Amino acid sequence: MIGLATTSPDGRRERGRRTRQGILSAAVDVGSREGLEALTIGHLAASAGVSKSGLFAHFGSKQELQLATIEAARAIFVEEVIEPASSAADGLPRLRATLAAWLDYFRRDVFPGGCFFQAASLEFDGRPGPVRDRVLEVMSEWLALLTGLACQAGVPRGRAAEQIAFELNAIGLATNWQRQLLRDDQVLDRAEAAFGRLLETQVTLKENS
Amino acid sequence: MIGLATTSPDGRRERGRRTRQGILSAAVDVGSREGLEALTIGHLAASAGVSKSGLFAHFGSKQELQLATIEAARAIFVEEVIEPASSAADGLPRLRATLAAWLDYFRRDVFPGGCFFQAASLEFDGRPGPVRDRVLEVMSEWLALLTGLACQAGVPRGRAAEQIAFELNAIGLATNWQRQLLRDDQVLDRAEAAFGRLLETQVTLKENS
Repeated sequence: MIGLATTSPDGRRERGRRTRQGILSAAVDVGSREGLEALTIGHLAASAGVSKSGLFAHFGSKQELQLATIEAARAIFVEEVIEPASSAADGLPRLRATLAAWLDYFRRDVFPGGCFFQAASLEFDGRPGPVRDRVLEVMSEWLALLTGLACQAGVPRGRAAEQIAFELNAIGLATNWQRQLLRDDQVLDRAEAAFGRLLETQVTLKENS
Repeated sequence: MIGLATTSPDGRRERGRRTRQGILSAAVDVGSREGLEALTIGHLAASAGVSKSGLFAHFGSKQELQLATIEAARAIFVEEVIEPASSAADGLPRLRATLAAWLDYFRRDVFPGGCFFQAASLEFDGRPGPVRDRVLEVMSEWLALLTGLACQAGVPRGRAAEQIAFELNAIGLATNWQRQLLRDDQVLDRAEAAFGRLLETQVTLKENS
């Protein structure tokens, strides 16, 4: 039965989908540990346990593979950081829940080499092209999300909200950086204290109705 | 006379020193733009305009070259950020002057691809060895310097001073990151505002005697 299922057109599609997912899961790990430039077809075929030609059937070029890896990493970030906070009440509770989920994502080492996007940003900031453009879009999306959450929590739209988003994001970047390089787990407590103080002193503590 | 000077033993040494400096200057640029892994003997020989064998006469291996490049970059950072602040009065003025010099170093693009050490940190955090160890030492030295300056400005030694150093450093990391990736020059004003607020609210405003 299983054999029959996997040789039907639907089964082949399903098997192809799983192979693609397996490749991208390995690609996200390699990208997080060694950077997106390390995603050569040969290196990744070995990591994912597929043949080079099998890999080529899914991704025609290194750049196509890099772009698909970014989408896979973005989906993981949404699932691990954005979605857990989506059940919190609008306003300050949602902002707090998002920041807590972000620290938890660092704590659990969701990406084995630390935050995929921070690494990709610094790797590609000086390399113009579609990969840099997409990394930039994803990071801008994250800053816009923090800005929006700050507004919903009562911070005036515009410069004030952008300032809070900049500072919250800075704390997260430094947390990832210090944890990865210095293997400093205390940094998670420092980040929590910094977030707490920022919200206390800079965010109007009004609950949105 | 010049010909005589450069063929004397002293002249040869001087010429060797200059060649080495020229190589390291090119190496710091390549490292800042493309990362320390891009420092292959071949690539760098082309960038520095010397032969591969000439380069080998100065640096016997890629790792030796990477380590020497880190020292050259550290010397630039000391010259551009630490020294300009050293004439400020002890305590809060020195801390303020150091932070101002740091922002100025970003503003002037002292390293053409953005902060050399932030890039090197994220490139090497997952690659154990002497290069990672040295990057880690230099970054710990910087955090210790910020912590010490905070203490001299009146922040209690220990956890409180380390917390301030963490937050000040976070703002700098984010400034470099956002400026490099998003080409966002407003970020320098945001960093200045964030530094100002942190010093105002968290640092005891007593002048050290």
